[in-house]
Amino acid sequence: MDELKALQAQIREFVVERDWQQFHDPKNLAMLLASEAGELLAEYRWVPNNEADAVSREPEKRARILSEIGDVGLSLLLLCQRIGADPIATMKAKLEINRIRYPADVVRGKSERPAKE
Amino acid sequence: MDELKALQAQIREFVVERDWQQFHDPKNLAMLLASEAGELLAEYRWVPNNEADAVSREPEKRARILSEIGDVGLSLLLLCQRIGADPIATMKAKLEINRIRYPADVVRGKSERPAKE
Amino acid sequence: MDELKALQAQIREFVVERDWQQFHDPKNLAMLLASEAGELLAEYRWVPNNEADAVSREPEKRARILSEIGDVGLSLLLLCQRIGADPIATMKAKLEINRIRYPADVVRGKSERPAKE
Amino acid sequence: MDELKALQAQIREFVVERDWQQFHDPKNLAMLLASEAGELLAEYRWVPNNEADAVSREPEKRARILSEIGDVGLSLLLLCQRIGADPIATMKAKLEINRIRYPADVVRGKSERPAKE
Repeated sequence: MDELKALQAQIREFVVERDWQQFHDPKNLAMLLASEAGELLAEYRWVPNNEADAVSREPEKRARILSEIGDVGLSLLLLCQRIGADPIATMKAKLEINRIRYPADVVRGKSERPAKE
Repeated sequence: MDELKALQAQIREFVVERDWQQFHDPKNLAMLLASEAGELLAEYRWVPNNEADAVSREPEKRARILSEIGDVGLSLLLLCQRIGADPIATMKAKLEINRIRYPADVVRGKSERPAKE
Repeated sequence: MDELKALQAQIREFVVERDWQQFHDPKNLAMLLASEAGELLAEYRWVPNNEADAVSREPEKRARILSEIGDVGLSLLLLCQRIGADPIATMKAKLEINRIRYPADVVRGKSERPAKE
Repeated sequence: MDELKALQAQIREFVVERDWQQFHDPKNLAMLLASEAGELLAEYRWVPNNEADAVSREPEKRARILSEIGDVGLSLLLLCQRIGADPIATMKAKLEINRIRYPADVVRGKSERPAKE
């Protein structure tokens, strides 16, 4: 069993042990994910762009950032499990769409991307 | 090479081909992630909790939800790559913290969880 | 001077006293706003839709919700001040757009709204 | 009647005409607000801090930013109305708390603020 599948099994067990499936409908999990993403965002709130890499290496700050990344990732896996989505397949499919939507020779080196629908 | 590692290599290639590393400092990637999480949230905005599972199975709606989940996941992997974090290890570490923070026998069946710091 | 203008003057003074203008560029303020919106979201994370009104009246919970609403509002006013936008005029203009985008006789009683661009 | 109160009356009318009160419980409105904040965030996603003021003045970009600020503000007022909170009083109360939490002589010129609870 690969690492991701092992983690998914542990997450499932964590939820069942706490009888939290009843709160984990997809709407609530999307809220969980967004609020955790907000906490991660807060870690970079006052950091200038050109210091963001260095700040991400400061031990105390890094611990907080990793803690929030962990929360965001766990929320995402919880949502995937709840709705029966394979996270890797879902990301691969979207990456393929992005390859077409943002052709390398059109967008190379440009931060402004064609508007998404 | 496992599936996640293969995907990570594809993401790296996608970014390099577009010369987007210059825009992908951790601050900007945290913003990307939060705005994608906001788009996912929007899909469940008017859905009542008790209809959220069914809505997640409606083909047209499901395609939109998976598209947003893909964006969130890709953003998270981009951030992990940029700061040199292993996504699986980071989630596992946080799950262990959550096991201690929310002991099963204390929180079982309760939606109100002890406040996080 | 009306109440909103008086509050805006107090906010300006608060920032100047702390010499925080240097951190308050519009990008950082948009991040502040989104992270505060995430904290407000967290207050309703596990609350079922049909209990959300009642929960908003529970004294302890209400205090937390109002605290987060205050943060969101202050962030919004900070951003408006920084970019020279009049908050009331900006909201009025958007409400007019929404009147046209969502004609009452088309959308009445429907949660699904025509997709926004 | 002051401008804010006039706007609040118009918002109320907008909602009633569309019979949308049924969808506007506080949980859904907090989601609306967070997703709108995510859209505003997206406008500044790839903008470096030191260009964010200038970008906010570019006519086309400014129109998009104001449109998102309008959405965020309207969402906030909808939530305030739903739970019976006075937006100005709520912001004033929070500003007073922030004055105490962040004493000018302690935090002056520092982006790192004492952690919030």
